[in-house]
Amino acid sequence: MRVTIFNEYLHEVESDVVHAIYPEGIHAVLGEAITRLAGADVGYATLREDEHGLTQQVIDATDVLFWWGHKAHDQVADAVVERVQRAVLGGMGLVALHSAHYSKPFQKLLGTNASLRWREADEKERLWNLQPSHPLMAGVPDYFELEREEMYGERFDVPDPDELLMLSWFQGGDVFRSLATWRRGHGTVVYFRPATRPTPPTTTQTCSA
Amino acid sequence: MRVTIFNEYLHEVESDVVHAIYPEGIHAVLGEAITRLAGADVGYATLREDEHGLTQQVIDATDVLFWWGHKAHDQVADAVVERVQRAVLGGMGLVALHSAHYSKPFQKLLGTNASLRWREADEKERLWNLQPSHPLMAGVPDYFELEREEMYGERFDVPDPDELLMLSWFQGGDVFRSLATWRRGHGTVVYFRPATRPTPPTTTQTCSA
Amino acid sequence: MRVTIFNEYLHEVESDVVHAIYPEGIHAVLGEAITRLAGADVGYATLREDEHGLTQQVIDATDVLFWWGHKAHDQVADAVVERVQRAVLGGMGLVALHSAHYSKPFQKLLGTNASLRWREADEKERLWNLQPSHPLMAGVPDYFELEREEMYGERFDVPDPDELLMLSWFQGGDVFRSLATWRRGHGTVVYFRPATRPTPPTTTQTCSA
Amino acid sequence: MRVTIFNEYLHEVESDVVHAIYPEGIHAVLGEAITRLAGADVGYATLREDEHGLTQQVIDATDVLFWWGHKAHDQVADAVVERVQRAVLGGMGLVALHSAHYSKPFQKLLGTNASLRWREADEKERLWNLQPSHPLMAGVPDYFELEREEMYGERFDVPDPDELLMLSWFQGGDVFRSLATWRRGHGTVVYFRPATRPTPPTTTQTCSA
Repeated sequence: MRVTIFNEYLHEVESDVVHAIYPEGIHAVLGEAITRLAGADVGYATLREDEHGLTQQVIDATDVLFWWGHKAHDQVADAVVERVQRAVLGGMGLVALHSAHYSKPFQKLLGTNASLRWREADEKERLWNLQPSHPLMAGVPDYFELEREEMYGERFDVPDPDELLMLSWFQGGDVFRSLATWRRGHGTVVYFRPATRPTPPTTTQTCSA
Repeated sequence: MRVTIFNEYLHEVESDVVHAIYPEGIHAVLGEAITRLAGADVGYATLREDEHGLTQQVIDATDVLFWWGHKAHDQVADAVVERVQRAVLGGMGLVALHSAHYSKPFQKLLGTNASLRWREADEKERLWNLQPSHPLMAGVPDYFELEREEMYGERFDVPDPDELLMLSWFQGGDVFRSLATWRRGHGTVVYFRPATRPTPPTTTQTCSA
Repeated sequence: MRVTIFNEYLHEVESDVVHAIYPEGIHAVLGEAITRLAGADVGYATLREDEHGLTQQVIDATDVLFWWGHKAHDQVADAVVERVQRAVLGGMGLVALHSAHYSKPFQKLLGTNASLRWREADEKERLWNLQPSHPLMAGVPDYFELEREEMYGERFDVPDPDELLMLSWFQGGDVFRSLATWRRGHGTVVYFRPATRPTPPTTTQTCSA
Repeated sequence: MRVTIFNEYLHEVESDVVHAIYPEGIHAVLGEAITRLAGADVGYATLREDEHGLTQQVIDATDVLFWWGHKAHDQVADAVVERVQRAVLGGMGLVALHSAHYSKPFQKLLGTNASLRWREADEKERLWNLQPSHPLMAGVPDYFELEREEMYGERFDVPDPDELLMLSWFQGGDVFRSLATWRRGHGTVVYFRPATRPTPPTTTQTCSA
C-alpha cells in the first residue's frame, strides 16, 4: 500500500511550542506510525511545495491520501483539489484527519460544508466502537479514551455516512460521529476525528452539572 | 391518524409505586398526550386481553401502533407478532418505546436481537438532534435533557438505520442512537429510547472522572 | 409551496424544431403542470438573465428549485452555484431533471461527476416503482412506460442514494436509477431522469437479440 | 475460509431430469467451484440429515454459509433457523442463492417477506455491475449475460441494502436488485439471484414491443 500524507506544515514552523513537539512535522510522526503498523510505503506532501507536493505523478502513485490542515485551507489550489477529487472517484482512498473536516477536498467530495460545534476545554473523550467486525476496526476495543481533547460536537453537517464506525462522548455533554466512511465513485472518503493518543480506559467517573 | 397503544400493563397492576404514578396505566398517559398534541384518534391494547387486544380488526384500523413492554415480552403470542409484522409490511407504522427494543415485533422486523448496554444510575441524559429538518423533529431544539434516566448504551445491535435522528449522551460516559427509523415493506419502524419527560436545557456543566 | 424553475432556454431559441414544441420554453410547460398538479406558486429563471435569474432574493423565496440544463452547464456562474448549494444546505429542495445530472449544482452537492452511459435510439423505457408508499410516489403505479426515450444507463456515478424510488428498464439492455434522493444539510436533492410523457402500459412484448 | 453449503437436495433425488444434471446434487457443483476459485475448505449440509446437517458444531466451524432451497422452506426447523441467525449476528456470512429469498434464515435476518415478481420464460438476463471497486466484484466486467433465465423482478420486498452491487435487466421488461448485502450484527447477509452460468456478452440487440 502506497500512502501519501499531506500536512499543512505551518504550525510546526511558525510556533516554537508546536515545533518542540513535532520537530520534523506532524506528517513525519504519522508516517512513522503508518509505516510501522501497516507496513505501508509512505511519502509526504506539504502546502509550501510546488503544487503542494501533490503533482499528478504523486497522486497517480498513491493508494491512500491522508490529509491534515487547519489554518490555511483556503491556500490549497483548486486545481489540486480537483486532482484529488478525480483520484478518489477513480479509486484512491482519502482519510481526512481532525480539522481537515473543513479542507477543500473533503467538502468537495461530500457536498456539504462539514460544519460542527467546537470547544477547547481539554476535556475527556470516549470513543465507542459501533462495528467491531469491520476491517478498519480490527483490534479496536469496545471503547477507548483520550484524556484531554478539543471537543467536536454534533450536528456535524455531512451526508449520512455509508458506514458509521465510531461515536464520541465528551465530558462536557457532546457527542460526535468520529469515524465514518462515504463511498464516492470507485474510492472511499474516511473521516477520523481524534487528535491525540489514546489512554487506557478508566473504570469510574462522576459528573455534576 | 388512528393510533393504537399497546402496553404490557403489568407493572401498574402489580406494583403500588407504579400504580400511584400511572393509576390508569402508562398507555392512558401516552394516549392523552398523543390525542392532545397530534389530534390522533387513540385506542388501547394490553397484554392480558384476548389476542392482547390486537385482533385483526384492531390492527386493520390502525395507522400507527405504539408498543411498550418490559417484563413479559415472551408472553406475546407469535400469531399476534406475525400479524403486526404483516401490517407494517403493508404500510402501518410501529413505534417501539424504550424497553420495547426487546419486544418480539421489533426484533422480528429488524432481524437482530437489539441487545445494548444498560445501567440504572439515575443519570443525566442529553439528546442531540441530528436532522432538525426531518418532519418527525418539527419543534425539537438542538438538544434537550432528561435529569434522571436509566442508561441505554452502544453497541445497540440493530441494522444501520435508514434515518438516524437523535443521539444520546449519558453522564456516565455512554452514547446511544436514541431515535431512528427503518423502512420495512410499505411501513416504517421507529425506535425512541427515553422514558421520562424532558427538563429545560442547562447552560453550564462540570465533570470530573 | 414556492417553486422556481431554472431552464437554460437555449434550444428553444436557437432551434426552430424545439421552438415549435416549446414556444414559450420548456420551463413554461413544466410550470403550468406543477401549478395545476401541485398548486404551487411558480416562478422562472433562465441562463441569459442577470445572475441567471437566481438572485439571492429569488433563492430566498424558493422552497423547491427545479433545474434543467443541457448544453451550457459551464456557463452557469460559480457564485450562483454556491448560492444554490448554500440554500439546499439550509433547507431548499433541488430537483435535477434529465441532463441536469451534469449541472454544476447537482455535481457540487453530490461530490461525484455523475457520469453515465448514454444512447439516442428512441427506445422504450419502463420505470419501476420501488417504494409505492413514499410520499413522492403517491398515485404512481407499479410501473409506467415511455415509448421513445433517450437512454441513460448504469453505472451512474453518484453516491448511494438515501432513497432509491424508481429503476428504469430500457429496451436495448440497460438499467438506470431514475428517481432517487440525497439529504444534504437541511435540504434534499432529487434526481429524475425521464424527458417525455408516460404512455399507458403495454401488456405484451417480444424481443430478439 | 471455511464454507458450508446447504442444499435442500430434493429435486436431484426426486426428478430424473434434475438428477441427470446434478448427479451428486447442486451443492457438489457449487462446492467444487468455490474450492477451485476461492481455495475454501468446503463442507455440505442437506435437508434430510439430522438437524439438516447444520449442528451447532458445524455452524461453529463455518465462516460463510451458502443456502439454496426451493420447495421445502417450511421443512427447515425453527431451531436451526435461530442457530443460523445467532451465528450471523456473531459474525458468520450468509449467502442466499436464487430461490433462497424465501428461505427462513433470509427472511428472519431481513425482517421482510422478500416477495418478488416472477416468470418462467427462458429469457435473457443482463447483470450490471454498480460497484466495480467492491471486493466482491473483483474481476467482474461492467455487465454479463445469461441467455435463458427465470425472471425475478421488482418490487423485491427487502430492506434497502447496505450495498447494492448488481442490477438485472430482463428481456421481458423487468429489473431486479440481483446482488446486495445487509449487515446484521457482526455478520453479513448477501443475496445473489442468478441460477445459471454466464454467457459471453452480445453486442447487438433488437426489440419490438
